Amino acid sequence: MVSAPDTNNTCWIITIGDELINGVRADTNTAWIAGRLADLGIRVTRAISVGDDPDAIRQATAEALDQVPVVIVSGGLGPTADDRTTSALAELFEAPLSRREEVVAAVRDFFASRSREVSELNLDQALVPEGFEAVVNPRGTAPGMLRRVDDRFLFVLPGVPGEMKALMTSWVEPLLSRTREAGPIVRRRWYRTTGIGESDLFERIGGLEAMAPAVRLAYLPSVQGTALYLTGEEEDEVALERLLDEAEARIVHAAGSYLYARENIDLPEHLARLLTAAHQTVATAESCTGGMIAAALTGVPGASTWFRRGWVTYSDEAKTGELGVPAELIADQGAVSEPVARAMAAGARERAGTDWALAVTGIAGPTGERPGKPVGLTFVAGAGSDGVVVRRYLFGNSGRWLNRSRARTVALDLLRRLIEGLDPQRGGWETPSRE
Amino acid sequence: MVSAPDTNNTCWIITIGDELINGVRADTNTAWIAGRLADLGIRVTRAISVGDDPDAIRQATAEALDQVPVVIVSGGLGPTADDRTTSALAELFEAPLSRREEVVAAVRDFFASRSREVSELNLDQALVPEGFEAVVNPRGTAPGMLRRVDDRFLFVLPGVPGEMKALMTSWVEPLLSRTREAGPIVRRRWYRTTGIGESDLFERIGGLEAMAPAVRLAYLPSVQGTALYLTGEEEDEVALERLLDEAEARIVHAAGSYLYARENIDLPEHLARLLTAAHQTVATAESCTGGMIAAALTGVPGASTWFRRGWVTYSDEAKTGELGVPAELIADQGAVSEPVARAMAAGARERAGTDWALAVTGIAGPTGERPGKPVGLTFVAGAGSDGVVVRRYLFGNSGRWLNRSRARTVALDLLRRLIEGLDPQRGGWETPSRE
Repeated sequence: MVSAPDTNNTCWIITIGDELINGVRADTNTAWIAGRLADLGIRVTRAISVGDDPDAIRQATAEALDQVPVVIVSGGLGPTADDRTTSALAELFEAPLSRREEVVAAVRDFFASRSREVSELNLDQALVPEGFEAVVNPRGTAPGMLRRVDDRFLFVLPGVPGEMKALMTSWVEPLLSRTREAGPIVRRRWYRTTGIGESDLFERIGGLEAMAPAVRLAYLPSVQGTALYLTGEEEDEVALERLLDEAEARIVHAAGSYLYARENIDLPEHLARLLTAAHQTVATAESCTGGMIAAALTGVPGASTWFRRGWVTYSDEAKTGELGVPAELIADQGAVSEPVARAMAAGARERAGTDWALAVTGIAGPTGERPGKPVGLTFVAGAGSDGVVVRRYLFGNSGRWLNRSRARTVALDLLRRLIEGLDPQRGGWETPSRE
Repeated sequence: MVSAPDTNNTCWIITIGDELINGVRADTNTAWIAGRLADLGIRVTRAISVGDDPDAIRQATAEALDQVPVVIVSGGLGPTADDRTTSALAELFEAPLSRREEVVAAVRDFFASRSREVSELNLDQALVPEGFEAVVNPRGTAPGMLRRVDDRFLFVLPGVPGEMKALMTSWVEPLLSRTREAGPIVRRRWYRTTGIGESDLFERIGGLEAMAPAVRLAYLPSVQGTALYLTGEEEDEVALERLLDEAEARIVHAAGSYLYARENIDLPEHLARLLTAAHQTVATAESCTGGMIAAALTGVPGASTWFRRGWVTYSDEAKTGELGVPAELIADQGAVSEPVARAMAAGARERAGTDWALAVTGIAGPTGERPGKPVGLTFVAGAGSDGVVVRRYLFGNSGRWLNRSRARTVALDLLRRLIEGLDPQRGGWETPSRE
């Protein structure tokens, strides 16, 4: 959705560091800062990354100050020669550097409390351009800096994530929420779906354009499914909640059984809650996913109350020896087959003595295809007290990681559908059969 | 290092999507693209993210084309109404959209090969502004687009990482390497270490400052260890290779047995090569890591030749029933103990009939501590024909994911040391004992 620029509540973020633009490291500070600002009703309209190059830093900062009332710069404040942000800003504003004694004192304390000797390089971090306010960094040696002209703000923060976050929460956010002009109230709600492709989900729900610009709905697809986030922006809180409730009702109705949570939690977390509430347990038997399903489930804190055991039966002998899959079944049907998936799930459930068991066998690729069994062919089985349900997928040859991840997702979704009493044959890895 | 801008070999990257500037998702495409371009000798001087806002897309693209000869835009090509890149570019160049029949055909094939019905929304992705070349996307439905004027390039790629990468490697990179003007030769070499902290590694190797600016060394720490990348830039290839060889000799000598590869491969890939070359096999028995080690190992293509089976023995009963760990040993020592780790590894090796077995038992947290057994206490065992080696770690209570990941790394490193005949008691998760 495009709304008229609300210049009172817009911000550009500038992250600085060679590593961010030479392929060495992804910039995660921008997303974190933007998320915090969103909660304050401040919208980031552009993010820029430049290297440790004074000209590039100066140019980007000047452009940003020309466009928006709030600019947050992060990075390039370290003690070594390749950190250039402070000197670039001093040049931009033609402001000489001055040593801030309260920062010097804090840096000395910082080193003393760690029984380390303070170095000249670190003391030089107390040099701040005149016209900037300096704020002591509780987690490190580079101070936060602020140049404030009327109702416009240029914040400068270190790039180390822990230090940046500490200064954001303790200083930038309180200051901005006190001083910025009150804007509309902003609320965000999350919905998580799986087993339905983004475009099919969109055909069901649409973009809620009729409710724009107060309410916007965004689609965020990943290998785990498509997450939806709903953003509402209104002056009046009661009206806002009413609008969001209305949008939610439409989303929930249209998403049907593909919706698994009305909050931003992943499938393992959702399954953990289901299994805990039902006092039920689960086991896994994996071939092509090689432990990914067990790893995902046991990633949830407290998993030991409902996860019992898992097998990675990569070889045929393992399937027979560990899970009791008859050797002649494997010889007849092949290890990647409906009956073998079924026998793996049944064997895992019986041997682990659990309420549920999941099993996966497939050809993850890039090689391993056999006559009639292409790369991507995958069988997923779920065993419960009512028997075993098996589903067959053709993921194609689109990469080993992707095929394994898709198999993990559909297996976890099969368990969800079995536990929740939903049709286990619905839902797919991209596009489901229509309900 | 700051060098004079080489405008013939500079690029801006523009990533598009509301999720990138509202805190929902970090931009990882920029780093990936920039890394690939660096290998071609093309330097990214600015990266910009804007939302799905036609004005912002238009403005950023126009600015970029004004500054640099290569612009790569990624994102906003999806089938739904919130994807606006194509229409924004059509407006920027005042070029009407035209349907590209070769793209339509490819989209139909894409759906047909997956036994799915093609939707109108997806067919509309074949609409491309006139003046742009369209290239079929091998992994999805949004085509790549190129507007080329003289020696200036505007590439437009989908935002889905797998699709963007496929188009980069199959199309953008070959085209740029054929057509760009030659600059200085740029070479990058990678070195992978594990078991040593970044600052300890830095104390051993240093920054190679004496070789700057032609040679630069950067440290990239992660939970898998610290990767080093060495970049050399010289007009003369022979001189460049000689400099890099000299730097490499220093790195290799100083890193000692913490260096496991002179290329950018992860530990599972390195182990796969070792095991394949030695015609040896491995099994895993995991408690706190819950399948992560098996999943990491089986993530390497062809793992079935050397990975046999794995157990996730989360409950005490599973450790006894699956691996033959005596119940009285667990009762006496606790499940998280040196003898239990030892028995798990020995049991796994015996039952799987493999050359090697790895076992892990620990308290991942955030809860689960017992008297004398704090969160983070982890035992890692490696069994081979010479017996079992067990190592004990105290990871602290720094997060479940981090503790599980650290346990995975040290277990894989233990196997590496055993296979390569290195001292298995060396190497740690952050700071090693000194060699």
